[in-house]
Amino acid sequence: MAVYTEVLDTELSTFLAGYDIGDLVAYRGIAEGIENSNYTLRTTAGDYILTLYERRVDPADLPWFIGLMRHCAQGGVACPLPVQDRNGAALGRLAARPAAITTFLPGVWPRRPQPWHCRALGETLARLHATAAGYTPARLNALGPGAWPTLLARVRDGADPALAGAVAEALDRVLAAWPTALPRGQIHADLFPDNVFFLGTELSGLIDFYFACTDFLAYDLAVCLNAWCFEPDFSFNATAARALFTGYASVRPLVPEERAAMPVLAAGAALRFVLTRLYDWVNTPADALVTRKDPLDFWRRVRFHLQTESFGAYGV
Amino acid sequence: MAVYTEVLDTELSTFLAGYDIGDLVAYRGIAEGIENSNYTLRTTAGDYILTLYERRVDPADLPWFIGLMRHCAQGGVACPLPVQDRNGAALGRLAARPAAITTFLPGVWPRRPQPWHCRALGETLARLHATAAGYTPARLNALGPGAWPTLLARVRDGADPALAGAVAEALDRVLAAWPTALPRGQIHADLFPDNVFFLGTELSGLIDFYFACTDFLAYDLAVCLNAWCFEPDFSFNATAARALFTGYASVRPLVPEERAAMPVLAAGAALRFVLTRLYDWVNTPADALVTRKDPLDFWRRVRFHLQTESFGAYGV
Repeated sequence: MAVYTEVLDTELSTFLAGYDIGDLVAYRGIAEGIENSNYTLRTTAGDYILTLYERRVDPADLPWFIGLMRHCAQGGVACPLPVQDRNGAALGRLAARPAAITTFLPGVWPRRPQPWHCRALGETLARLHATAAGYTPARLNALGPGAWPTLLARVRDGADPALAGAVAEALDRVLAAWPTALPRGQIHADLFPDNVFFLGTELSGLIDFYFACTDFLAYDLAVCLNAWCFEPDFSFNATAARALFTGYASVRPLVPEERAAMPVLAAGAALRFVLTRLYDWVNTPADALVTRKDPLDFWRRVRFHLQTESFGAYGV
Repeated sequence: MAVYTEVLDTELSTFLAGYDIGDLVAYRGIAEGIENSNYTLRTTAGDYILTLYERRVDPADLPWFIGLMRHCAQGGVACPLPVQDRNGAALGRLAARPAAITTFLPGVWPRRPQPWHCRALGETLARLHATAAGYTPARLNALGPGAWPTLLARVRDGADPALAGAVAEALDRVLAAWPTALPRGQIHADLFPDNVFFLGTELSGLIDFYFACTDFLAYDLAVCLNAWCFEPDFSFNATAARALFTGYASVRPLVPEERAAMPVLAAGAALRFVLTRLYDWVNTPADALVTRKDPLDFWRRVRFHLQTESFGAYGV
């Protein structure tokens, strides 16, 4: 459930007057989503999404995210297109926050992903990587391996000591084995099912580019592997994983080094969510208006990947 | 912020198959609203609102509410029209809850109501009363004066003793002076600004009929007086009140008994919200995912109305 900023109808009308997208018809806060405040927005010109960026997003990063979305949308990736105001700016200010209007993407995210969803996801991810390669500015992965030791240090005191010790040990193993030279580029880095829309059997859009960064392309696949290929009971769905990798490889085959590194990339990607969820767990008051996610869900994935000998073990 | 029920994409598609309104295109939980779970719903046929009724609503009352909305919408009142499924039923079941689909009403609710909003509200309220008069089934006002002593008894132990004592005294005064014979009919009973939409300068719709009941028509005006005619600092806006009453009277003039009873009706209407907010305050855990409203906001209104000598004091 979103913590969201209230927007006055009058200030929204004034904000819209700076754009060439007609007059305000309706807007409603979207309950889903945690990072930012999102509204469905209808004007006399059509439907849009209004996003107000909350304190988790560094305003200095916003032009990079907006630029990436614009580049990808114009390059044919189904993702939100930031709408420019009459002065050509896609970033404005509303209710004392940075704000942007993007196009509305039809589709629903799959609550119970099936292997065919994963196949489509793999294909689209590879296309996203190919298109985004033309977007040249780089953005460091602020939640990449370089940040994990710091995150661990920050949660260690508040976390269960046995878990914290095991996470520290896993982190040492992962960092020691982390690859240094894999194909790099712009990655989404957070393609969970709620960020991927489908219309019937077609993947209709990718949203929420606010963790995107420049990193190993195969790391994006590792995030998806964790987010899409485990059942609610934490069992690994090898059919879904095969579909994901096959879909990706149908557009861009992995190089041998990427295949070899997949177990450690996947363990690291799972560790990233263990650490950020631990951080949220420790730092979110129990009475806050957000749902805290259980870090243990991803800790089970870390352990699975650390026991995985090779790429072939993923069912490929 | 809404406590809302999660709806699976697959079960929503199945639910929609029972209707003749096309296929699922998008749906998103609406953050605003407390009583029920609401989703914006888009299908290939257009835009709708999906409502799942939560435990606060008695399922036995739903056919009455749905029937009233249908009657009013078909009678020309701008309110949601419940959509019937292929079997003619406007009430279904989704995610283990009673559920309904209604038409989407364009418009935004005024965060800072102005007198011109109140004038339009008065006119529309009188038209609602006239149209709803043709809907014959009656529904007792479950939160009317008969319920207030019980509500007070339930909150007394958990409330500040000085406040509870003062409320009890006010309640005695109000009940002793409560009118017995005023024009009656179907009333909305909860027309706060967030239930009234405007498109530009036109009132475009009334929503949320789930407190509607059969009671004094003038009590509905008294609810609006409390909800629309006080400033954030609790000062009474006589210009707004005059606009509200003038708008109403332009469609249906009040009879002398209604004018005479307005101070006690307004005190009672304010007491109703003091009592239900006290009830929520006492019974809502501090860590619940809903925003508790301050009962004192309406207690100030009770005191204002108890000091009001006559209808003329409202600026009319």
